[in-house]
Amino acid sequence: MFIRHLVDFNDLSLAEWDILFDTARDIMDNPSKYMKSCEGRIMATLFFEPSTRTMFSFQSAMLRLGGQIIGFSEPKNSSVSKGEVLKDTIKVISGYADIITIRHPLEGAAFAAAQECKDTALINAGDGGHLHPTQTLTDLTTIRMEKGRTDDLTIGMCGDLINGRTVHSLIKAMSHFKNIKFYFISPANLKVPQRLLSMLARKGYEYTETESLEEAIPHLDILYMTRIQRERFTSEEEYNRSKGIYVLNREKLASAKPDMLVMHPLPRVDEISHDVDDDERAVYFKQARYGMYIRMALIYHMLNSPTENVPLPKLTDTDAYCDNPRCITNHEHYLKPMFARVKSHPDIRYCVYCEKQYKN
Amino acid sequence: MFIRHLVDFNDLSLAEWDILFDTARDIMDNPSKYMKSCEGRIMATLFFEPSTRTMFSFQSAMLRLGGQIIGFSEPKNSSVSKGEVLKDTIKVISGYADIITIRHPLEGAAFAAAQECKDTALINAGDGGHLHPTQTLTDLTTIRMEKGRTDDLTIGMCGDLINGRTVHSLIKAMSHFKNIKFYFISPANLKVPQRLLSMLARKGYEYTETESLEEAIPHLDILYMTRIQRERFTSEEEYNRSKGIYVLNREKLASAKPDMLVMHPLPRVDEISHDVDDDERAVYFKQARYGMYIRMALIYHMLNSPTENVPLPKLTDTDAYCDNPRCITNHEHYLKPMFARVKSHPDIRYCVYCEKQYKN
Amino acid sequence: MFIRHLVDFNDLSLAEWDILFDTARDIMDNPSKYMKSCEGRIMATLFFEPSTRTMFSFQSAMLRLGGQIIGFSEPKNSSVSKGEVLKDTIKVISGYADIITIRHPLEGAAFAAAQECKDTALINAGDGGHLHPTQTLTDLTTIRMEKGRTDDLTIGMCGDLINGRTVHSLIKAMSHFKNIKFYFISPANLKVPQRLLSMLARKGYEYTETESLEEAIPHLDILYMTRIQRERFTSEEEYNRSKGIYVLNREKLASAKPDMLVMHPLPRVDEISHDVDDDERAVYFKQARYGMYIRMALIYHMLNSPTENVPLPKLTDTDAYCDNPRCITNHEHYLKPMFARVKSHPDIRYCVYCEKQYKN
Repeated sequence: MFIRHLVDFNDLSLAEWDILFDTARDIMDNPSKYMKSCEGRIMATLFFEPSTRTMFSFQSAMLRLGGQIIGFSEPKNSSVSKGEVLKDTIKVISGYADIITIRHPLEGAAFAAAQECKDTALINAGDGGHLHPTQTLTDLTTIRMEKGRTDDLTIGMCGDLINGRTVHSLIKAMSHFKNIKFYFISPANLKVPQRLLSMLARKGYEYTETESLEEAIPHLDILYMTRIQRERFTSEEEYNRSKGIYVLNREKLASAKPDMLVMHPLPRVDEISHDVDDDERAVYFKQARYGMYIRMALIYHMLNSPTENVPLPKLTDTDAYCDNPRCITNHEHYLKPMFARVKSHPDIRYCVYCEKQYKN
Repeated sequence: MFIRHLVDFNDLSLAEWDILFDTARDIMDNPSKYMKSCEGRIMATLFFEPSTRTMFSFQSAMLRLGGQIIGFSEPKNSSVSKGEVLKDTIKVISGYADIITIRHPLEGAAFAAAQECKDTALINAGDGGHLHPTQTLTDLTTIRMEKGRTDDLTIGMCGDLINGRTVHSLIKAMSHFKNIKFYFISPANLKVPQRLLSMLARKGYEYTETESLEEAIPHLDILYMTRIQRERFTSEEEYNRSKGIYVLNREKLASAKPDMLVMHPLPRVDEISHDVDDDERAVYFKQARYGMYIRMALIYHMLNSPTENVPLPKLTDTDAYCDNPRCITNHEHYLKPMFARVKSHPDIRYCVYCEKQYKN
Repeated sequence: MFIRHLVDFNDLSLAEWDILFDTARDIMDNPSKYMKSCEGRIMATLFFEPSTRTMFSFQSAMLRLGGQIIGFSEPKNSSVSKGEVLKDTIKVISGYADIITIRHPLEGAAFAAAQECKDTALINAGDGGHLHPTQTLTDLTTIRMEKGRTDDLTIGMCGDLINGRTVHSLIKAMSHFKNIKFYFISPANLKVPQRLLSMLARKGYEYTETESLEEAIPHLDILYMTRIQRERFTSEEEYNRSKGIYVLNREKLASAKPDMLVMHPLPRVDEISHDVDDDERAVYFKQARYGMYIRMALIYHMLNSPTENVPLPKLTDTDAYCDNPRCITNHEHYLKPMFARVKSHPDIRYCVYCEKQYKN
C-alpha cells in the first residue's frame, strides 16, 4: 500500500522512501521501461503562486512517464479570480485529472485540498512557508546518489536558517538516519528555531552553531547553501557586513574536503559565485535533475500502486480556531479547524492544517 | 455527416445530440477504447478571455482522446496585443491545429472565426453573453445521466434569469423535449426575457414565474441555480433583502423531492451553501465531470466522422450594420454585416453574428 | 553530422538546408511516418518575451513529431522574476528537456544559452533585433515550395528595411543563391544598412533602391512585405504622407506578375489590405504553415541525427567589452566578452554574442 496523497515528507515511511529511491535509480537506468507507465493519465499542476522550477520538474516528470498535463501557473489564471473557494477548484479538477500537484501561498492549503480528493492523488508542491516534501525528496536523492549513503555524514546548512522551510524539512529528514552531525551556519538573528534544536538534542544528534562559513567548511561532507534575503538583515550596515561572509566562492571552497557536496535548492542569487559552478563538488544543477527523477518515482507509485489515505491524527475536541493569519483555515471559511496533540509533548496542541503549536 | 463547427447549440439536430450522448456514455464505460482516437491531432484553445474551468474541461477531453494541446488563456498572451485581427489569428492557427476551441468576450466572434476555418473544426467555448453550446450539452448530459430521460420533467431555474446566457440556452434546449414544465425563480428585475416566454407559450409549454425559491422547490425534478451578481440589484437595500432568498441551503432543500437534482454551471460564490455539497441531490461537481465526457464525444465526432458546414441562413440583402456595441462586426472592420429573418416572424431581421433582432 | 544548436541561419550549410527542405517536404507527404519520431522527448519553449505565433509554430511542430512541451510565454512566468541569471535557467532546464527553443529580448542571448547546453539541442527563436533563423528557414521554404527554386528570382522587400531583422537575414540568405535581383522599397530614412549593400555589391548581386512600391512591383517574382511602425517616421506629416504608399492593395497588385508571391512574416497590421487575402498570389498564411513543417524537419534532425557543436570563430585576445547596451554581455555579468574578426575585413572586430562591429 502506497500513500494516496503526499502533503508532508513525514507521511512517507523510511521503507517507502527506499522504494522511491530504488525506483528513481531504475528510471535513470531504464527510462524506456517507464515511458508509457502513466499513459492516458492527466496531472493538473495548480500553482496558486508562481514557481517555474518546481512546476517544470513535475511536468517533465509526468511527461516522461507518458502522462499529460493541464494547469495554471499563477492565481490570476485560475478561477480564484472569480472568487471560487479552494474546495470547489479541487472538486472540479479532481473530476478531470488523475493526480494534482498544488502550490499555494497559504499554510495547510495542500492538507485542505487533500481532504477533497477522494480517489485523486495529490502532491504538495509547497504550501507557503510550511512544507515542500518533494524538495526534501530531491535533497535526499542527491545525497544518496552522490554519497552512496544517507548515514554517517556531517552536513552544514548555511544562510537563513530561521525562515528556511527547505532547511527545516531537511533537518527533520536527516534526523531519521544514523550518525549525522550538523553545522548550522548563519547570522545570530537567523539561527535554527529552538524547537528543532531540542528535537535533535532529544534524539541525540550532535550539532554546532556558528556564524563563520570558513570555520565550518573543512568539517563538512555536505554544504547546503541557501539564500539570505536582504530584508532579513536588521540593518543596512549589518547586511553589508554579513553578505560577503555567507557567499561561497572558490577561495572558501579551497579548504573543503575533496569530495564535499555543494547543494542548493535554487534559484540562487549571489550566495554561490559562478566560479564555483565548474568545480565537480558543485552538484546543485545535478540536484535539480535528480528532483525530476524522484518525482517520476513518486508519481509512478501514486498512479500505479494500490494507495490509501494517510490517517488523520487523533483530534482533540476543541472549539478553538488557529490564530495564524497565514493558515488556510483563516481564508477558506467552510473549513472547520482541527487540532491534535504533539506525541512527545501532550501538553502542546497544534493546528492540523498549518501545524502552529499552542500550549494546551 | 456531422457538423464541422459548433457555434450554436441549435446547429446540432436532436439526432446528433443522441449520438453525442451515446458516445459520451460509451466513453465513460470504455475509456481505453477511445484513448488514442485523436492521436496525432492538435487542439488549439484560444481563450481571448480567461475561463479556466471551461479550458481545462476541453483540454482534459482532448488529452483523454490521445490528442495534444496548444493555446493561450488570455488575450495579452495572444498576438492580439500586437494589434492582429481575429481573422489572421484563426487563419494561422488553423494551419497548425486540427480543431480550435474559441472563447471570446464579443458576441458573434465564434461565428466570425468559423467562417475562416475551411477544413479545421471549431467549437464555440463562449462568445460574450451570447452562446455557450457545450455548457448546454453538459447540462443535458447531466440531466439524462442522472434522470435517465430529458422528457417529463419539471425544471426550476433560479437567480439572474435576464442576463444568464446559460439559462437562456438551456430553456431553448429543453423546449425540444416532451412535457417539460418550467419554474422561473428570480427578483422582479431579473426575470426571463419576454421573447423566450413567448417562444415557450407558442410551443405550448407551461411555465410559472415566482420570486420565492421556497414556494417553487417542492414541485421540482431539477433545480438549476445561478449566481446573482451584486451589481444586478437596483439598490443596496434590495440586495440585502434579496440575497438570502436565492441562496440554497439544507433548510430549503428539506422541502425538495428526494430525487431532485441540484445543478449549477459553476463557479458558485454563495448561492449554494457548502452544507448542501454532501447531499446526494447536489450533482454540480458531477456535472463538471459529465461536461468533460460530452466534450470528448463532441471532439471525437468532429475529428473522426465526415463533417460538413452548417449552411448559412438565407441572407436579406441590406446595407444595414448591427448597432450592438458588443457585436464582433463593430470591432473587426473587415467583416461585412449579414442579416437574416426570423422564420416564425418574417418581419424581424437579426444580425447573423450576434443575433440582435430588428423590426423589419 | 548535424548542428547541435541553431543560433544563426549561417550555422547551417547549404547542404544542411537542402536536407531540411527535403525532410520538410517528406513530412508534408507522409506525416504518419514522423508521428512518433520524437516520442518521449521534451521541448522547452523559453520565451523571455511573448511571441505567440512563433511559440505555437514550434509547439505544433514538436507535438506533431510525437514529442512533448514544457515552457513559459513571458518573463514574469519565469524564474527571472526571482533574479535568476540566464545561465542557471538553462542549466536546470537542460536537465529536464531534450531541446530548448529560446526567445529573448537581448542580442546574443541564444548564443550565450547555447554555451551552457552540453548535450541539449537549442534553437534561437529570436534574440532581440538580432537573429531569427527559423523565420529565414520559413521564408526560404515558402519560396522553394511555391516557386520550385531559390535561384533566378527578383525579390522585392518593402517597408522598414533598416530595423527589419527578418529582412536582413533573408537578404543574407538569398545572397547564397544564383542570379538573384533585389528591389529595396522603403522611405529614405528606413533604407537597408550600407554594410548589407556592400556585401551584395562585393558578391556581385544587382539591387535597386526605390521609394515607390508601384514602380517596383511589375518587376518582382516575390514581394516581401513588412510593417512600418508609426514611431519610425520622422514626423506625423511624414507618416500620413507615407503610410498609404507602402500598403499593398488589389489596385497595386493589378500591375504585378500573375505568379508573383506576396509574403509577410506576420502579424500584419494594415500594410496589406484584407481584399488581397483571397488573391492566390497571397501566400502569407501558407507561409506560416510551411514554417511549422520546416521546424518539424529541424527538430527531427537535431533530435535524431548525430550532432556536433558549431565551432567558435578564432577569438582575438582582447580585454575589450561590447558597448552595445542591448548585448547580453551587458546584462549577464558572469559572461566574459568574446571578439573575433570579420573574414573579409580583418581590420574589423565584432562581438561574438551580438555581432556589433568595431574598427580594429
